[in-house]
Amino acid sequence: MVTFEMISPADFFYRNRDIAGFTNPARAIFSSVRELVENSLDASDQSRVPSEIYIRLSNDGEESSEEADVYKLRVEDNGSGIPPRHIPSAFGQVLFGSKYKLKQARGTFGLGGTMAILYGQITTHKPVDVASSTGTTRIHRYKLMIDIQKNRPVILDSKIQVNKNRWRGTMVEFCLEGDYPRAMAKIVEYLKQTAVVTPYANITFVDPKGRLYKFNRVTSKMPRPPKETLPHPHGVDVETVRRLIQITKCRNMIDFMKTHFHRIGEKISHNFLKFAGIDEKKDPRKLEPDEIVKLVRMMKKFEGFRSPDASCLSPLGEDLLKAGILKELEPEFIAVCQRRPSTYSGHPFILETAIAYGGNVPRKDDIVLYRFANRIPLLYDEASGVSWRIIKSINWRKYKVKPDMPVAIMVHLCSTKVPYKTVGKEFIADRPEVKAEILNGIREVARQLQRFLSKREYREKERRRLAAFSKYLPKIAKFSTELSGKEKEPDIRKLLWSVRKFEEETE
Amino acid sequence: MVTFEMISPADFFYRNRDIAGFTNPARAIFSSVRELVENSLDASDQSRVPSEIYIRLSNDGEESSEEADVYKLRVEDNGSGIPPRHIPSAFGQVLFGSKYKLKQARGTFGLGGTMAILYGQITTHKPVDVASSTGTTRIHRYKLMIDIQKNRPVILDSKIQVNKNRWRGTMVEFCLEGDYPRAMAKIVEYLKQTAVVTPYANITFVDPKGRLYKFNRVTSKMPRPPKETLPHPHGVDVETVRRLIQITKCRNMIDFMKTHFHRIGEKISHNFLKFAGIDEKKDPRKLEPDEIVKLVRMMKKFEGFRSPDASCLSPLGEDLLKAGILKELEPEFIAVCQRRPSTYSGHPFILETAIAYGGNVPRKDDIVLYRFANRIPLLYDEASGVSWRIIKSINWRKYKVKPDMPVAIMVHLCSTKVPYKTVGKEFIADRPEVKAEILNGIREVARQLQRFLSKREYREKERRRLAAFSKYLPKIAKFSTELSGKEKEPDIRKLLWSVRKFEEETE
Repeated sequence: MVTFEMISPADFFYRNRDIAGFTNPARAIFSSVRELVENSLDASDQSRVPSEIYIRLSNDGEESSEEADVYKLRVEDNGSGIPPRHIPSAFGQVLFGSKYKLKQARGTFGLGGTMAILYGQITTHKPVDVASSTGTTRIHRYKLMIDIQKNRPVILDSKIQVNKNRWRGTMVEFCLEGDYPRAMAKIVEYLKQTAVVTPYANITFVDPKGRLYKFNRVTSKMPRPPKETLPHPHGVDVETVRRLIQITKCRNMIDFMKTHFHRIGEKISHNFLKFAGIDEKKDPRKLEPDEIVKLVRMMKKFEGFRSPDASCLSPLGEDLLKAGILKELEPEFIAVCQRRPSTYSGHPFILETAIAYGGNVPRKDDIVLYRFANRIPLLYDEASGVSWRIIKSINWRKYKVKPDMPVAIMVHLCSTKVPYKTVGKEFIADRPEVKAEILNGIREVARQLQRFLSKREYREKERRRLAAFSKYLPKIAKFSTELSGKEKEPDIRKLLWSVRKFEEETE
Repeated sequence: MVTFEMISPADFFYRNRDIAGFTNPARAIFSSVRELVENSLDASDQSRVPSEIYIRLSNDGEESSEEADVYKLRVEDNGSGIPPRHIPSAFGQVLFGSKYKLKQARGTFGLGGTMAILYGQITTHKPVDVASSTGTTRIHRYKLMIDIQKNRPVILDSKIQVNKNRWRGTMVEFCLEGDYPRAMAKIVEYLKQTAVVTPYANITFVDPKGRLYKFNRVTSKMPRPPKETLPHPHGVDVETVRRLIQITKCRNMIDFMKTHFHRIGEKISHNFLKFAGIDEKKDPRKLEPDEIVKLVRMMKKFEGFRSPDASCLSPLGEDLLKAGILKELEPEFIAVCQRRPSTYSGHPFILETAIAYGGNVPRKDDIVLYRFANRIPLLYDEASGVSWRIIKSINWRKYKVKPDMPVAIMVHLCSTKVPYKTVGKEFIADRPEVKAEILNGIREVARQLQRFLSKREYREKERRRLAAFSKYLPKIAKFSTELSGKEKEPDIRKLLWSVRKFEEETE
């Protein structure tokens, strides 16, 4: 007998936590830190105050099994804070969030933070503690659990405290099973790479052994915040248009196009509707299903739209990217590049790349790749990501890069929609437009590295040549003198001095 | 200003279709075929009748853009059929399904089929047609759309037809945007591999060009169906136990353990509760949160539970696996292996492996890997899967396998819970227990191939030796005769005959 059943989204992700990055105790503790830190970074971007993030992971005393201990994780930020009425849902309900806007954000799924809390609950059965203030005279504290079957927060306790110092931010604390010893390296690497890509953040991490990791800001300059944007006509589907029709106040198609889509003025609206064969005066609410389909198809075909502007994006910028890399890797050579805005299926994106050589760049058997998307590091499944495949396809000898050289490449993709292939935000799907930009971005910085390496190679060769020369110079001078029949040898010291001078100049 | 919002699961997957395998028009058409075929195979497994599946993909006349056309996809099966009252939800509601039972099934997410229909809707705005009968006198037909924001089916039309021939099964037909030319190779490969792992199915596929692909059954024997099972105490978490407590009718812990968990009798229940320090007479409904946590932890630690039996699994079996491979690849040599049931974190699994050599096995630069999980082929992201990494870690020279040889390896994992890393069911996460079984399974069949190749190599060498021998035999005979001072040469024909005989024997 077959029975049918409906499950809640919380229940779905509870049953399928592998796909959200909670595969095992080590991975779970890494994902929890990561999801909360990213929420914190987003919150401080919103408040336009350089981030202060404090992370504390402590042993909760209990040992739960051979491979997992119980830890208490606390993450505090100075971000925008959460309006009190939204606190229970923001932490106790899956698919509830503030990030469904069309602009760049770290989290995109309304899932990560709650997923960490849900994982804590199913492994320890303990509530989460949340305190938050938007900077008013009050701090709101909640003790919550999640009703997984109903996808609802259960409020166990709530109180209001006086906010004497006008603190603004959010604090989350909960217990979870995890395997810190096996997750440690990844967590520290994650924070380090986050520091590279967030050079305006102070990040403090106290680990269960009491070790302190501090990543200090080198600048208080923050990237321009992203603006919310309207959808680009090349990126919409039938469902989007259907929803717009339901809410629109426009009573004709000219206005409808101008009001709800990105960078459409009177003239483009007119040209497009003519191209699409749609009556300009038609009431959008009276479009039939097949007319909506036609509208969407014509939008994809029409080439007269302006390309999306990048105000909804917030790339790091060459200076900040450089500052971040110099701070964490102290390389001998660095080149950074920000590509011009581009689009894939109507979603604008900007690609930033950097190459670093020497210094603290780890020397491995291959190029070290740091991948970032919307200012978060991607640490898992490198081989599946598009960037790695592109790096592998490049003939590095052309750029004078040998496998044993300490070379690191950074690829940073900013977009309103990062084409992740997993909920766990591990790697980026292949999109031809994105691929082309990554390739060009890497090539551009690689060429700069090539020039640096060539120059160095040339100097090295010259130096060796001159060193040999200076060694034999006295003899040569003597023989030449004899050979030419002259009596006085040339001033060798003068010759040697010019050799030394070359060496100094190229130092 | 930050705004907060709750979105429906349908809306979540609509916004994040990349993670469900609907990345681009080519991938979308592949995923749609696949999800519906898998639902059909599950439905005919339920009805215990060898599957008859008919797939038709036809051009819907409209061209939607440069890279995508509109197709109509129709999939028909002779499966168990869907009870009429569940039809609208089964096709018009995300996370509604029949597969949340603890037994092996192809689909596990209650998502795939509806996701395909949702994708069709957002690209063509057309309803889905469904007809189904459980073999009664009636066929129920529905025309449906999905209200994505509410995650509800919208019934546009429904009718009841007389089921004259007592047809049983389900038919689904809907339109979607896709790129068939680019998806074709993957779809055909998918059906071929499905035929390998489902040798009792008749699969017919008519493609948009009218080409007919037929995969005929070679047996009507079906694998033993999986039984629904109770959770094994090693595999449960706090949430599972909390839910059991809410519904249990047991009034003491001894009964609670016996009733709700896998393979626990009076004695084991007694031993375990003693080990855990929990009162046998305690009413389970009165367990405090921290007692539940303790119970779960003790369940994970207790070593006296019986290991899960494999009745909830439905592996293919060595004979059927062999039949499927022989049918589709016609190899020169084949070895199959079914490992004994094993478990990872309380989930039972069985691993089946096979190795095939020669015949129609494609000759590539490397071993060809066919991956299956719960009798479905996994085609994407091979490099990320655990099997590929294991194959790469094996020293194949030891097994006399060279890169240019036509060698194929099949790995089939059956489990109540396949640790997929994506909703798109592309590849399997690393689990040490699973990894060990895959390695051992591959080694076992590889050893058999090695024996075959060694034997062949030996024969080849002997043959070459004897060929050389027979060439020089007359001369050797002559010289030896002279050397030994004998007068009559030995009968060379007799000697040559024995050489020929060896050759024939080893043919």
